[in-house]
Amino acid sequence: MNNSVGIVQAQRATFDQPLTFKSGAVLPCYELWYETYGVLNADKSNAILICHALSGHHHVAGYYEDDTEDIGWWDNMVGPGKPIDTNKFFVVGLNNLGGCHGSTGPASIDPQTGKPYGASFPVVTVEDWVTSQARLAEQLGITQFAAVIGGSLGGMQAMQWALSYPDRVRHVLAIASAPHLTAQNIAFNDVARNAILTDPDFHGGDFYQHGVVPTRGLRLARMLGHITYLSDDAMADKFGRELRHGKLNFSYDIEFQIESYLRYQGDKFAAYFDANTYLLMTKALDYFDPARELGGNLNRAFAVAKAKFLVVSFTTDWRFAPERSREIVHALLHNKRDVSYAEITSAHGHDSFLMQDEQYVAVMRNYLNNVAAEGSL
Amino acid sequence: MNNSVGIVQAQRATFDQPLTFKSGAVLPCYELWYETYGVLNADKSNAILICHALSGHHHVAGYYEDDTEDIGWWDNMVGPGKPIDTNKFFVVGLNNLGGCHGSTGPASIDPQTGKPYGASFPVVTVEDWVTSQARLAEQLGITQFAAVIGGSLGGMQAMQWALSYPDRVRHVLAIASAPHLTAQNIAFNDVARNAILTDPDFHGGDFYQHGVVPTRGLRLARMLGHITYLSDDAMADKFGRELRHGKLNFSYDIEFQIESYLRYQGDKFAAYFDANTYLLMTKALDYFDPARELGGNLNRAFAVAKAKFLVVSFTTDWRFAPERSREIVHALLHNKRDVSYAEITSAHGHDSFLMQDEQYVAVMRNYLNNVAAEGSL
Repeated sequence: MNNSVGIVQAQRATFDQPLTFKSGAVLPCYELWYETYGVLNADKSNAILICHALSGHHHVAGYYEDDTEDIGWWDNMVGPGKPIDTNKFFVVGLNNLGGCHGSTGPASIDPQTGKPYGASFPVVTVEDWVTSQARLAEQLGITQFAAVIGGSLGGMQAMQWALSYPDRVRHVLAIASAPHLTAQNIAFNDVARNAILTDPDFHGGDFYQHGVVPTRGLRLARMLGHITYLSDDAMADKFGRELRHGKLNFSYDIEFQIESYLRYQGDKFAAYFDANTYLLMTKALDYFDPARELGGNLNRAFAVAKAKFLVVSFTTDWRFAPERSREIVHALLHNKRDVSYAEITSAHGHDSFLMQDEQYVAVMRNYLNNVAAEGSL
Repeated sequence: MNNSVGIVQAQRATFDQPLTFKSGAVLPCYELWYETYGVLNADKSNAILICHALSGHHHVAGYYEDDTEDIGWWDNMVGPGKPIDTNKFFVVGLNNLGGCHGSTGPASIDPQTGKPYGASFPVVTVEDWVTSQARLAEQLGITQFAAVIGGSLGGMQAMQWALSYPDRVRHVLAIASAPHLTAQNIAFNDVARNAILTDPDFHGGDFYQHGVVPTRGLRLARMLGHITYLSDDAMADKFGRELRHGKLNFSYDIEFQIESYLRYQGDKFAAYFDANTYLLMTKALDYFDPARELGGNLNRAFAVAKAKFLVVSFTTDWRFAPERSREIVHALLHNKRDVSYAEITSAHGHDSFLMQDEQYVAVMRNYLNNVAAEGSL
C-alpha cells in the first residue's frame, strides 16, 4: 500500500481523575482509545490532532496486522508524503468519549454498577471532548499541537480547541464545518433521534440488558443522515430514477437504485454502531454554539483564539453550507486573526470532506507545508 | 366568514364498474367523496377540478354545519370573489382513491373479505387517480373542465389530465410541482416509508385487525416531511436556535423550539392519518414520470397536451425547486403550447403553495380571470 503509514496499533489511555461534563455530570474514570502515526520530535512540537465526526473513530490511517482491509477513514489524507505528512508530523487520532469504538461510552461497563452505562452516560458536548482530548495530550507530553484538524463535527472540536486552549494549538483546520447548527440541521437530527428513541428495542437507552439493539431506529437515522451528506445533484448523477429491476414492481420492496443504496447503508450501519452513541453525537452537534453565552456574537467568541486558521467548505454541501464557513471566517477577520479560506467546487456535498478531490488535497497540502513542525505561537 | 362558500356538505359517488390500475390490480367497485362549490352552468362548461396533495382531501373550501371550525384546506383560494371564484366557476374537490377521508382506501372494508383492504389495496398511480376523477366528472355530467388545478402531487394530477384526457381540460394549473421526483425526493420518501414499514405496529399493512396503529412510523414520516415543506431560511426565521425552556437540559426531551414544532406536527398527524394511505401517496409521487415510457423525453410526453398551462413555482421551494417547474415550461414551449410561468419570491418553501402570498394570489386571480367559464378547446 503506497504511501501508507503501514501497520498500526490502537492504544489505550486510562484517566483516573474524574471528568466533570458541561451538564454537571461526572465520570469518575474513563479510557480513550487512540492511534499515532509518525514520530514525536524532541521538543514535542510536531503533533497534529485529528478530531472525528459523527461516525468516525481513532483509526485514521494505516491498517491492522490482522486485518489489512481495515484501512483508516482518512488514509488518503494522512501518511508519508500525504497532505498531513507523517514524515513531518506526529499525528494523533482518538475515539471520542461516548463513542463506540473502544473509548468509554454508553456500552462500556460502569464500574459503579457492573452494568453498561446506557442511558446514564452523560450527554457530551464539544467542550467536554476537547477537555478530554487535552488530557490525552498531557499524557502524551504534548503541550501544544502544531495543528488540530477536523471535518464536520470534527471541525467544531478543532475550533473549540482555539477557544478552550488558545495557547495549546498553533493552527486550526476546520473543514465543512459550521459555527452552530441551523434549525433545519437540528430538525434532521431530531427526526433521527426520535427514530431511535421510539424504537421499542431502545428500552430507554438500556437495551444492552435486554439483549436487543434498536436496529430499526438506527437504520432510519443513518438513511436520513446519508441524504444530508450527499448533494441533490450527486444523488441525481449517481442514481437518478434508475430502477433496481428495470421495471416498476408496485410494492414497497426496493424499487429505485437510490432506495437500494440507502437501505444498504442503513443496514450496514445499524449492524455495528451504538444507538446511544448516535444520540450523543447528534446532541453534541446541536449544542455546539460558542457564541451562545456571548449574546450570539461570534466575533466575541473568537476573540480569545490565537491560532491561525484554515477554513474549507464545499460548494454543494447543503448540510454545512459555505455560508456557514464564511461566518467563521468573518468572525476571525473581525478579530484580525490569520485565516485562509478555500471554497472548493465539488459535486459530492457534505461528504466531500472525506473524498479525494484534487483541489481540496492541494489546499490541505499547501497549507500544511507552511505549518512548522517546530515553533510556538 | 367573509367571502366563504359557507356551509358545505361532503357527497359520495359510487362506482360499480371495476377499475383496473396501472399495476394490473382491479378494484371491482369503489366510492369517492367530494364536495362542490358554486353552480354548474347550463352547458356544464364552468367546472374546475381541484386535485389534492399528499395529506389533502375533498374539503377544499367552506365549513360544516356541525363544525364551523373545520375550514377547507384551500379556503383562501376558493370562494366568491376569490382567485378560484365560485361566482363564476363550479368547483369540485375530491378525496382521492386510496385516501383516508372517506373515499375507498386501505382502511375501507373490502366487500369480498369483510375486512379492511390493508396491504391488499392496490398501489395507486397519478394516472389511476386521473382515471377515477374522469369517471367522477362523467357522473357529474362534466365533459370538459374549464381548469384542473393542483399543487405539489396535485399539480402532477393536473398535468396528467392534459396527457390522459387532452380534450377534457382547457386549462391546467400546476403549482409547486415537478415532471418527476429527483433521487433526493425519492430518498426522503423511502425513509418515511421505511419508518412506517418497520414499525412493529404496522403488521405488514394489516394493523387494523390488530387494534393498533403504526403511530411511531407515521409520526417520523410526518416530522421528516415537514422539514422538506419548509425552507431552511423560514425555519431559521421562525425557530432559529431558540430553546424551549431557556436553557439546555442535557437530555433527549424537547430542547429547541424546532423540535417542539416537529414533534407536535408529527403527533397531530399520526393521530388521524392512515399509514397505508401515506405509503400509497408517496409511491404515487415516486412513480409519476410521464416521460419514462418515452425514453425520458418530456417534450414527447407533452406533445399530446392541448390545454393552456399556468405553471407556478416558489423561489425557496427546495423540494420541488423552480428548476423542476421550468422543465415543464420548456417541454410545453417546445410543443408550442400556450404556457404562463410565475416564479414567486416566497420565504416559505414548498408550503408556499398553501399560503396567502399577495403576488401568488394575484397571479392565480389574473390567470383565472382570463379563463372563460364557457367555451371549448
